[in-house]
Order: sequence, then C-alpha cells, then structure tokens
Amino acid sequence: MFLARVIGRVWSTAKDPKLEGHRLLIVQPLTPEGKQTGKRIVVADSVGAGAGELVYCCRGRESSFPFLPQEVPTDATIVGIVDELHVDRTKNERC
Amino acid sequence: MFLARVIGRVWSTAKDPKLEGHRLLIVQPLTPEGKQTGKRIVVADSVGAGAGELVYCCRGRESSFPFLPQEVPTDATIVGIVDELHVDRTKNERC
Amino acid sequence: MFLARVIGRVWSTAKDPKLEGHRLLIVQPLTPEGKQTGKRIVVADSVGAGAGELVYCCRGRESSFPFLPQEVPTDATIVGIVDELHVDRTKNERC
Amino acid sequence: MFLARVIGRVWSTAKDPKLEGHRLLIVQPLTPEGKQTGKRIVVADSVGAGAGELVYCCRGRESSFPFLPQEVPTDATIVGIVDELHVDRTKNERC
Amino acid sequence: MFLARVIGRVWSTAKDPKLEGHRLLIVQPLTPEGKQTGKRIVVADSVGAGAGELVYCCRGRESSFPFLPQEVPTDATIVGIVDELHVDRTKNERC
Repeated sequence: MFLARVIGRVWSTAKDPKLEGHRLLIVQPLTPEGKQTGKRIVVADSVGAGAGELVYCCRGRESSFPFLPQEVPTDATIVGIVDELHVDRTKNERC
Repeated sequence: MFLARVIGRVWSTAKDPKLEGHRLLIVQPLTPEGKQTGKRIVVADSVGAGAGELVYCCRGRESSFPFLPQEVPTDATIVGIVDELHVDRTKNERC
Repeated sequence: MFLARVIGRVWSTAKDPKLEGHRLLIVQPLTPEGKQTGKRIVVADSVGAGAGELVYCCRGRESSFPFLPQEVPTDATIVGIVDELHVDRTKNERC
Repeated sequence: MFLARVIGRVWSTAKDPKLEGHRLLIVQPLTPEGKQTGKRIVVADSVGAGAGELVYCCRGRESSFPFLPQEVPTDATIVGIVDELHVDRTKNERC
Repeated sequence: MFLARVIGRVWSTAKDPKLEGHRLLIVQPLTPEGKQTGKRIVVADSVGAGAGELVYCCRGRESSFPFLPQEVPTDATIVGIVDELHVDRTKNERC
C-alpha cells in the first residue's frame, strides 16, 4: 500500500454503472517522511476519507476487494486513514 | 485510476475474438493540472468517449470488469468521462 | 495495451507445460508516433503475428485471457495486429 | 518478490474491515547487496516480522493469498524472513 | 515475460506455508542483447533452473499459475529456460 494525502475530487456523470455511488478522490502519494513522491492519481474511497487527510491506498486487483461482491472497476482505493506512523531512524540508516 | 485525454484511435482486423466490437482509443495520460505525464497507451472504451474528451482510465485486471461476464483481454479501459475536477491548492502545498 | 513491433523470437525446451505450443516473440514497445519506448520484452502470441509487424499487446492477468480456459503463465500477449492508427495532432497539442 | 528491511509501522483505526487485525509495517526495498532501492511502502505481514528484519515481500494480487479465504485488500505483503542469501559474483559479472 | 540470468539464492525458514518446498532464486533481468536492465528480484522457480542459466520469468498473478491448484504467494516465477533467441537487426533499426 502507499501513503497519500487527499487533495481533490473528480465529478463524473458518464461512467461505468458499477462506479455509481462511489466518490472519486485525487490523492498525492507521499513518503513516510511526508514528501511528495510520484504522480497524483484518482482513487475510489472505501473508508470515507476527507480532504487533506493522510491515508493509505491499495493498488491493483485488490483495490476492488472492499466493494465485493460488486466488481467495481477501480485500480486504486483508499483502504484506511492513518492515525499515526513511526519510522525507526536507526534501522533506517543501517539499511 | 489515471486522468487522460483521448487523442487517437487504432483500427485492427486480426485480433483476439473477445476484442471484437470494442473501440480502441489512444490516450495521453494527464496530471490533475492538465500536464502530459507518462506514455500514450491504447485503451478500450466502456463509456463512449469521444476524441478530445477528458476521461479517467482504469488499469490492470479491473479494466476488464466493465465487460463482464465477457473476459476481454484489455489492461486499460476508459471507465468515466470527467465533468469537473477540483484540486485543493492549500492541501496541495501542505503536503 | 501498448503498441510494439515484433523484432525477435525465443526458443525454449524446458518450460512450464502450459506454455507448450505457444510461440514466444520479442517485441520493442513503440509510441503511437513509432518511436522506441521502454524495454524489449518476451510476449506470447494469440493472433499469429509475424516478424516486423506492428501489434498491440496486453499486460498482466488479462494477457492470459486469449488462452482461456487454459491458465497460461504469460504476463504479456499480442492481442491484435494494427491495420492503421490515427493521432489527432490538434487534440494532442491542446493537452 | 523483492527484498526489504522493516523500518516502521502504521496505526489506523478507520480502515477497511478486512484489514482488521493485520499489522501494517513500513519497509525499505533493498538490493541483494543491501542497498536501498525504490520507495518505502506500507505492507501487510503474514509471518510476524519484527522491526529491522530482512524480509521478502510479494506484490499484487498474490499478496493477498496468505490470508485466503479472506479477501484482504493488500497489494504488498511480507511472505518470508530471510535467513541467508547468496549472490554469485562470477555469474553476476558475466551477465 | 522478461529475460534474466540466475545469479543467487535466498534461504528462509519463517515463510508463508504455501511457499514451503519452493526454491527462491535471485535473478538479474537482461535485455535480449544480454545487458543488465532493472532491479534484481527474488523469484520462484517452476522449471528447475540452475545458477547462471538464462531464463524467462513471468510477473504478476500469472506467475502463480505453474503451481495451481496451490495458490502460491509469488509475484515472479521462472517459467522457462532459454535454448536460443534471435533478434532481427533490420526490423530492430526500422522501429
């Protein structure tokens, strides 16, 4: 999964019927240290994340699991909101 | 999902039978700000997108979901047309 | 899907039994304008493409769909031969 | 699979119900020679790996297999802890 | 699929039970011309490849197909050993 911040939203009328009722958000992927990394993408939301929140997203086939048994055509989905994260600096440097 | 603009089309006679009847379009991936990003690819279309339209596409296994129960061998599909999108500049800078 | 030209072939005796009888070709991925882009890869062929032909390939789980119900362990497959392709230069520049 | 070192952890209350009870760790991908390579990501853990341990992770759809029959929405999972690894320098140079 | 040379091996005791009995090798991805390209990764082996051999590997969901009906959590697997490969230089330049 990758960390990201919610920075926007997409509105769409003409879309695949299985996407009806799912909010589509724009997120900026971040490193654990909070730096921007990689491209902004459009994601589905399974947890009710709000603008500006730090979340983690799942990519690929698994990103449709939160919506099962519906086969939602999404390839990236917010699956959790981060309360807190910790990176061990010592372990980090030893790598 | 990624944002993209429809910029072309591919015609093909010899192809996998499960692709029969599906339009194949060429899209240029874009950032939410409208800048070109990444390679142009060939996508299937599940929503009837026209030339020049701003769309969002789904990659991977899920890109064949709009065509279920048919198992169409596509790895990227237009799943919606964008009406409007919004990026929060403040949230954006705080990242 | 990505565009590519067939530039070579691989012969292999010791291989997964589900790959028996499938030709393995080497392709060079191309942009819609015909420029080389990205790494050459080994692909399976579901349409009988010949050396030098312009084709489009499907990656990932869906690349095994042309061979269903057989579960062929391929992650990239030629799914069509390109007759003609068109890129709209105006749309292109507006992006 | 890719090699990585466990360098941190993520705590999260609001998350997809299928992620309940799964520890989420932050890992730094490494080369076989132990150099950092690529972005740090959030992974699920199927083997009880501890902080600082050298592990190998599986990406994509298969990363949810350790949790079957539960369809956990994870796209990267630690599937083993490395006891020892060996790289043949001669073979290496001949490449 | 991608071409690669077998350059090492990983030993692991604590691992997902479905990985028991599968050899894990380290491979260096190669171009068809034999140059190193991309990161070394850990792969499962379905064909009994030896150290130094030139092989082709399958990534993603399909890389677990050789082990069906067992759902092995691998995202890259050696599916064949290369006897010979041919790249057409003329086709190559015309690209």
